[in-house]
Amino acid sequence: MTPTQSLEDVQPDIDITESVESALKEANAAELNVLLESVTISEALRVVLAFTPDERDSLIYLISAELASRLIDEAPLELAGELIERQESEKAAEIFDELDSDVQADVIAELDPNDAEAILASIKPEDAAAVRRLTEYDPDTAGGLMLADAFKFRADQTVGAVLRSLASDDEDLERYNGQHPYIVDEANRPVGVVSLRGLLTAKRSVKLDEIMVAPMTVTANASLTALQDLFNDHDFLGFPVVDGSGELVGVVSRTAVDAAILARAEGENLRMQGIVGDELRTMPLAIRSRRRLAWLSANIVLNIIAASVISAYEETLAAVIAIAVFLPMVSDMSGCSGNQAVGVTMRELSLGLVRPKDAMRVWLKEVSVGVINGIVLGILIGIVCWIWKGNPYLGLVIGLALAVNTVIAVSIGGVVPLLLKGVGQDPAVASGPLLTTITDMAGFFLVLSLATLMMPLLLQ
Amino acid sequence: MTPTQSLEDVQPDIDITESVESALKEANAAELNVLLESVTISEALRVVLAFTPDERDSLIYLISAELASRLIDEAPLELAGELIERQESEKAAEIFDELDSDVQADVIAELDPNDAEAILASIKPEDAAAVRRLTEYDPDTAGGLMLADAFKFRADQTVGAVLRSLASDDEDLERYNGQHPYIVDEANRPVGVVSLRGLLTAKRSVKLDEIMVAPMTVTANASLTALQDLFNDHDFLGFPVVDGSGELVGVVSRTAVDAAILARAEGENLRMQGIVGDELRTMPLAIRSRRRLAWLSANIVLNIIAASVISAYEETLAAVIAIAVFLPMVSDMSGCSGNQAVGVTMRELSLGLVRPKDAMRVWLKEVSVGVINGIVLGILIGIVCWIWKGNPYLGLVIGLALAVNTVIAVSIGGVVPLLLKGVGQDPAVASGPLLTTITDMAGFFLVLSLATLMMPLLLQ
Repeated sequence: MTPTQSLEDVQPDIDITESVESALKEANAAELNVLLESVTISEALRVVLAFTPDERDSLIYLISAELASRLIDEAPLELAGELIERQESEKAAEIFDELDSDVQADVIAELDPNDAEAILASIKPEDAAAVRRLTEYDPDTAGGLMLADAFKFRADQTVGAVLRSLASDDEDLERYNGQHPYIVDEANRPVGVVSLRGLLTAKRSVKLDEIMVAPMTVTANASLTALQDLFNDHDFLGFPVVDGSGELVGVVSRTAVDAAILARAEGENLRMQGIVGDELRTMPLAIRSRRRLAWLSANIVLNIIAASVISAYEETLAAVIAIAVFLPMVSDMSGCSGNQAVGVTMRELSLGLVRPKDAMRVWLKEVSVGVINGIVLGILIGIVCWIWKGNPYLGLVIGLALAVNTVIAVSIGGVVPLLLKGVGQDPAVASGPLLTTITDMAGFFLVLSLATLMMPLLLQ
Repeated sequence: MTPTQSLEDVQPDIDITESVESALKEANAAELNVLLESVTISEALRVVLAFTPDERDSLIYLISAELASRLIDEAPLELAGELIERQESEKAAEIFDELDSDVQADVIAELDPNDAEAILASIKPEDAAAVRRLTEYDPDTAGGLMLADAFKFRADQTVGAVLRSLASDDEDLERYNGQHPYIVDEANRPVGVVSLRGLLTAKRSVKLDEIMVAPMTVTANASLTALQDLFNDHDFLGFPVVDGSGELVGVVSRTAVDAAILARAEGENLRMQGIVGDELRTMPLAIRSRRRLAWLSANIVLNIIAASVISAYEETLAAVIAIAVFLPMVSDMSGCSGNQAVGVTMRELSLGLVRPKDAMRVWLKEVSVGVINGIVLGILIGIVCWIWKGNPYLGLVIGLALAVNTVIAVSIGGVVPLLLKGVGQDPAVASGPLLTTITDMAGFFLVLSLATLMMPLLLQ
């Protein structure tokens, strides 16, 4: 590595797919390692996923367990489980052993129980026990996100002992990147933490209890949101995690919490688009299709409910067939306005700026926007309708319906996520379909009932 | 702080809004500080934002500049700028001075140029110069995300000098939490980095060039995606940033990159829902309304294009009015299927698993799901239609149209984000409206043209 090596040198923008393909055909393990190490790990994963499942298995089998473990760490969880499960048990155990304990626990939870047992049986018993303990925690809690082992000392050890441990050749220092050493009592409860400054400036013979300060700890069941707040409020890179009895069971790092928050935001994004579960296009067709259908089938029922409103007004429609042209417009435009309100509420929820009890305040704010936008959009669509179909009263019906329905849509869009959250439901997965159904029904009803009322004018 | 203080103790779940309100009425600055310090900073921000803009201004004015700066750091950028701008200049400068240099640059970019100049004139000239330099970088690059000052030494300094600097009373150690000291040459170019282990294990008289290793650097214009890959591939907590001439200009930390990636994901999420720009409900009504309308107005045009298909078939509709009941269902269901495909593609894009050139592979994967789901949904809706309207041929028309349109929708939904990305457009903002328009048009056309063809059977 030259002193001025910069990012561009590290990441050549070439596609290694073809070279990997030929190395794979020749089963050239060394070449595969070199090629996949030459690009970023996310690019390496992209290349690997472009192969068929069987080719992927051979490739993972050929490359070093260390590289395989980094690919698996980079892959979404479900895929990570699949990649390990499809290896023969010896190789699977070897790769598994290279993973961090929090990732191990996540992967184990994805595996078929028999495969999971086989892997746990093949690693060191104490490591297996640690993984088993970790799998008992909810993934999005301090327990689920922590590394199972902490960098810990006793109060009567000296600064010199910590320094020697840091200097020893094992992986500790790398693993505890930026973490502080914790001091535990005889019952393994954290009683102190030593700052880097303390370690660097004290004499080596000083006992740790002379320079330690009281640690802040989190309980293993602390939620991701609580952890987010905690790291937001404090500059630390990690917190010691304690179980119900106050024993130190691990360390949760800022990096792990940040990654979990990003994954949560991305999962929410997907669920809002109607993808429940962690779909990747490399997954088996049957799973992808079935999961998407589950969500779509529920939507069919909601659509039938909305469509029944139109069905009730077939006579009106038959008399003024032009209305059929505008029904989907009114429902689509209202749906868009409502989705904007959903988006803002979801954002404010994720920033912690609103809570379910703020529903009334949110509603008032949305109504103001809804009234203005409803009037503007109503006038626009009314004029379009008038010019297109040559009847000002039809324009009035459609414009008025869109104006009113915009207010309804933003009200529902702004408030429904809060109400769902308030009753413990997932606002990301249910807000959209609920919104669409209600605004469709309201939009169809407004257009068709107004048209029925004004029928004599529309038939002029 | 007691040794066993845990998360629950730190975060009492009480609402301080009323207490803050009365402290604000009494202009009790000390009480306001105590109250807002007693909760997490995100909760404090939530409480502050519930007040009117004028009340907020008084509150920010009363509390300490340090607390105000933490609130402003926590707030979304646009709001951060507003909060500072509305303070009188002396207070504004005092708060500004407490912010990190990267946040200062972001805030300055939000301010009215006159206000920005006033603030920069009131802080130390060298700090102002650093902020001006930072504002020249794109916010989502290493230059825009870095802290402008690095923890740097010369190669002929000793380990002892670094340790003394770490032990000195300034804020360095806190600010460089987990960062490594960099060694620069006489032209301020980074030539080395010293590991913590090196510092801890070397004698204090050892010169830094004996224990330093060559540093990896990033250039100031490195993109967020490149930084994400880099931190993904390396366990470091920060990288030194160099300008075009190789000079050390700052340090970009993992924390800053993680925060920017999360903000990018959240912004994308919002844009997919039709919210362009950083809307919060505390913003002025006119801005919120105008921004939402800009996006909706573009949608009206697309809707008119789609509706014109219906208009072209008014005769068919008039003959079989029941079709009007199913038109919105077909378009909504297809839209949902398409959105699922958009969601998966956006996710795979953000994970780096697909690129624009993978469009064909993605399309084939989507077509398989589309065919299966199209057949299932088509049969379902066909049966519903047959039973409801008593005509099997109407069921056939609607079912067939939905089946075909589902394949079209997932194809477009899967591929359009890649194509938009390929031509440098934002897939989040444009995929949805494009998808909806095309699937609406195709759906309306399929239903109405099939119905026209089968008219004799439908009129039985």
